[in-house]
Amino acid sequence: MKVIKYPQRDAWPELIRRPAIDHRQLSVVVENILSDVQRDGDRALSTYTLKFDGIALDDFLVAESEYLNADIYVSQELKDALDIAKANIEKFHVMDVTPRSVIETSPGVTCWKRKLPIEKVGLYVPAGSAPLFSTVLMLAIPARLAGCSEIVMCSPSGVDGFVNPVTLYAARLCGVTSVFKIGGAQAIAAMAFGTETVPQVHKIFGPGNQYVTEAKLQVMRTGTAIDMPAGPSEVAVLADDTCLASFVAADLLSQAEHGTDSQVLLVTDSDDVISDVLSEIERQIDLLPRREIALSALANSKAILVESIQTGLDLLNEYAAEHLILAVADADAIAEQVTNAGSVFIGNFSCESAGDYASGTNHTLPTNGAARAYSGVSVESFTKTITYQTVSREGISDLGPVIETMAAAEGLDAHRNAVSIRRASETR
Amino acid sequence: MKVIKYPQRDAWPELIRRPAIDHRQLSVVVENILSDVQRDGDRALSTYTLKFDGIALDDFLVAESEYLNADIYVSQELKDALDIAKANIEKFHVMDVTPRSVIETSPGVTCWKRKLPIEKVGLYVPAGSAPLFSTVLMLAIPARLAGCSEIVMCSPSGVDGFVNPVTLYAARLCGVTSVFKIGGAQAIAAMAFGTETVPQVHKIFGPGNQYVTEAKLQVMRTGTAIDMPAGPSEVAVLADDTCLASFVAADLLSQAEHGTDSQVLLVTDSDDVISDVLSEIERQIDLLPRREIALSALANSKAILVESIQTGLDLLNEYAAEHLILAVADADAIAEQVTNAGSVFIGNFSCESAGDYASGTNHTLPTNGAARAYSGVSVESFTKTITYQTVSREGISDLGPVIETMAAAEGLDAHRNAVSIRRASETR
Repeated sequence: MKVIKYPQRDAWPELIRRPAIDHRQLSVVVENILSDVQRDGDRALSTYTLKFDGIALDDFLVAESEYLNADIYVSQELKDALDIAKANIEKFHVMDVTPRSVIETSPGVTCWKRKLPIEKVGLYVPAGSAPLFSTVLMLAIPARLAGCSEIVMCSPSGVDGFVNPVTLYAARLCGVTSVFKIGGAQAIAAMAFGTETVPQVHKIFGPGNQYVTEAKLQVMRTGTAIDMPAGPSEVAVLADDTCLASFVAADLLSQAEHGTDSQVLLVTDSDDVISDVLSEIERQIDLLPRREIALSALANSKAILVESIQTGLDLLNEYAAEHLILAVADADAIAEQVTNAGSVFIGNFSCESAGDYASGTNHTLPTNGAARAYSGVSVESFTKTITYQTVSREGISDLGPVIETMAAAEGLDAHRNAVSIRRASETR
Repeated sequence: MKVIKYPQRDAWPELIRRPAIDHRQLSVVVENILSDVQRDGDRALSTYTLKFDGIALDDFLVAESEYLNADIYVSQELKDALDIAKANIEKFHVMDVTPRSVIETSPGVTCWKRKLPIEKVGLYVPAGSAPLFSTVLMLAIPARLAGCSEIVMCSPSGVDGFVNPVTLYAARLCGVTSVFKIGGAQAIAAMAFGTETVPQVHKIFGPGNQYVTEAKLQVMRTGTAIDMPAGPSEVAVLADDTCLASFVAADLLSQAEHGTDSQVLLVTDSDDVISDVLSEIERQIDLLPRREIALSALANSKAILVESIQTGLDLLNEYAAEHLILAVADADAIAEQVTNAGSVFIGNFSCESAGDYASGTNHTLPTNGAARAYSGVSVESFTKTITYQTVSREGISDLGPVIETMAAAEGLDAHRNAVSIRRASETR
């Protein structure tokens, strides 16, 4: 980790800058994949799956026998763990389900809104270096709670032509409608446009590499919604001398093992915390199977010494971390002052791993500073809101003149006339 | 209007298809504007404002004197109308403000979420053929209710170098922080990147032409959020023989006068309704100042005769109209069956104009079929949600094994270790 001591405030923007991705070349590659899939459907999917994943596949839909094999493969211990995680995630996410509220804004003018499920949704679950079955729980559970009628999932198969069995088991457990063995930008294209076998969906969710993210951004143009633009995963820890260096080191490493591009940040008001955490990292890292990945992520990571925890909090509010761990004395009070973060972990025993898997909160969170404007995935992400109004004869008589005055001032006479013709009809 | 009778269900996709925009050329033009503004700031804004709007401007910030002039210009009648509209919009939108709810998902594991304002937001208010000051109300009121600390607005000035006075009056009335005389893609660029005078914002809202929409989609790549991709405005009316043809005609015309690309759709189970509405349109259209625009929009519009109101509803659920008017006998019951729409107007006296200006609901709504996955603007659009968790020593002891099992199964040992190290510390 790079250690930076007492940076000036005008150096903050540089300090909190994430690595920029040059999307131009990426953009052309992805544009071609999208148009090929849109034009050639399944045939293009076969071509790209062979090209990028080295697998010859004609049939992408996961068969019933594969779910049965998955069920045999997954240990009872893991099944029990998944059940508990699922129950906790459901308990937390069901809080989103809100009753409709109706208001009479003006006599005879009644307005309300209703959250309805997005009918068809697509979940992308990457495979790559680790089988991320926890992502299935985090996307499919809120989709089900929202009431989505079709939940399509794409995940690349291994070289054996099979999707990871735990991923499949989790998909079935959480009510995914169908799983397709497709990865990368071509998976996003398949769900956005639909092919002979893959159904077209209205919104696409899930993490992925920069090709997947670029594809998600591009399909927005043709009307498919997305959860958020994803970037490399991040953790920031705000620590004072009440923290436990071994815990902080473990949390930083759990982020660093995700990928070489993971963003790891330690902010503290104590020089001792920095040196203790750094030596703990050295001790713990040697025991990790993913040591090389973690080492490489840490090379780009920063430990920042600040004058006070308040200054550290200001810096982190500007940074807007995906995960923010508060390992400080008055963590509860500090948590109230957080203005930008994806998910906040309060106190020494609240590790990011808890939220990653089983505490109940969602782990699909805004990265790359997006937490300034985006939220993590929730049941709401799988719904859209429709507004309704009933205006009675009395209502239009009463509010009509206001509408007529405004429409006239905007020079929209037909808008005014739609009111006038109704008001005039009263007198009949 | 084109009249289509009893279309087969397999002809629906073609029938509800909106005109496609070829974004490729557009994309390059906008990309250049964005990179110029990002590099040259205010200087680029001056160049583009001269080039596209024909106005030489060095200072884009609206001065205090211009607000004073606006205050003198706007009639008392219009001020009163704006006050009533504002009060209704506030009454409806304040319903979004939700209290925090806390849940203990597992013993010692407490999770909650909190909606916080997006700190800096940008509103784009087009000028063009009509001064759309109502859009100021629809964007600034929820921004204020959400608690955004900086509300920046861009709107192009007229050839006289001044922003429409009613737009300015509304901006001040609704608590906009600062207004800049900038239009088009360059306005989106200015708010996304910030310039010497325009503050950078985290999320950009508001309608606009295809350059504005393309610019909004492009700035998402560099981390700015947007409300939704906007397209031409739309209304669909579902009518049976209980409708009043003159009302329906007035509603269709109020949409048609927006622009030549407005989408207008009449769906009915009655041949008489089609002929009555068409003759009412002929009668009413001649009285409209914006007759030519309306005529041209109607040329691309469709009146569709269906077997039953239920079939019509199915068709309209696939269409996902921005505005959906239900002028049918059992409108309340039909409204409950709507699955895709931006805003629904129930019964003969509920005209779209009411929602456009003053009933309380928002008029910034998903167009172009986006209502399948997007919602209209609300207070929620100006907030993001942060999730929080506190895990106690007891909590990690209890839930820890579940997390460890799942982390191990994903091959993420450092994730597991972050739990194990905490569980082990108990025994000390």
